[in-house]
Amino acid sequence: MAHIDLGNEIPGIRGLFEYRPDTGAVLSDLGEVLLRGDSTLARGERELIAAYVSHLNGCRYCAGAHGACAAVQLPGGAAQVEQALNDPEAPVVSPKLQALLEIAALVRQDGRLLTEEAVAAARSEGATDREIHDSVLIAAAFCMFNRYVDGLAALTPVDPAYYAATGQRLAEHGYRS
Amino acid sequence: MAHIDLGNEIPGIRGLFEYRPDTGAVLSDLGEVLLRGDSTLARGERELIAAYVSHLNGCRYCAGAHGACAAVQLPGGAAQVEQALNDPEAPVVSPKLQALLEIAALVRQDGRLLTEEAVAAARSEGATDREIHDSVLIAAAFCMFNRYVDGLAALTPVDPAYYAATGQRLAEHGYRS
Repeated sequence: MAHIDLGNEIPGIRGLFEYRPDTGAVLSDLGEVLLRGDSTLARGERELIAAYVSHLNGCRYCAGAHGACAAVQLPGGAAQVEQALNDPEAPVVSPKLQALLEIAALVRQDGRLLTEEAVAAARSEGATDREIHDSVLIAAAFCMFNRYVDGLAALTPVDPAYYAATGQRLAEHGYRS
Repeated sequence: MAHIDLGNEIPGIRGLFEYRPDTGAVLSDLGEVLLRGDSTLARGERELIAAYVSHLNGCRYCAGAHGACAAVQLPGGAAQVEQALNDPEAPVVSPKLQALLEIAALVRQDGRLLTEEAVAAARSEGATDREIHDSVLIAAAFCMFNRYVDGLAALTPVDPAYYAATGQRLAEHGYRS
């Protein structure tokens, strides 16, 4: 049960958006522009960064939803996502994406941990400044979303079918619907 | 020097907003609605929560800017902010705000650390569900802003006059200007 009376039974962050629609609208916009807006990173790659940070933060709701959304959009599907989240050394994503996931993992812990070396490593795999920027901001944003969901103890379904359906919906219709 | 070529010399998060204006606009909206929008928490109280989380995260830019903005808007000015940030046990804010700062400190570490007891303690000091919600979301949002600024190594001025002017500007004109 959530720490506050949300006045609705909607799972996860959507129940929080319904509780306070004005912040909900802005946060939905952020998801839309970051994860689906203009970028040279594929949508599935961005969803994987979001899922990876959420997984490391132990946020089951966000890791489930964004992992499922990544699975819909990456060529290797759920098996690829599962392996990328649980075994970051496994060569299941491109070296560039692997370096960006490493950047995201550092930023997740503390922004000050992101070294010039980790940035140079991503660059040497072909990452652009904009891709590095977006990876940092996605990691930072999910440090917010994860804390918002778990801090208020939002309802977190356990049924994998819930997340599969959510991932499909997000991939098709995005964050503003 | 920032980790990426921002194409501008603007300090702190504003240089990042200038680099990618579409995410900058959404993040500015978030600051505006959370810190200055409709709330039963005074603007100075919300800025203090933002400054406290930033201080605990070691983000000198955000702690400086929001601490200065809180100082402009709280009755005890800079001395009150200084004491609240560095000695959370000091009775320099209301018991309700002190309990909300404690909630913010827990969420900063990990959303899952916010216990029913900490929520009940804030409620017993008169905090409403909406004030608890907003404190959680402000803490979560500054875990994002701090990581965005420090993760990209945004330019962080050392001159206290810079922060005093920034705090004054934010208090007068807000986050969208």
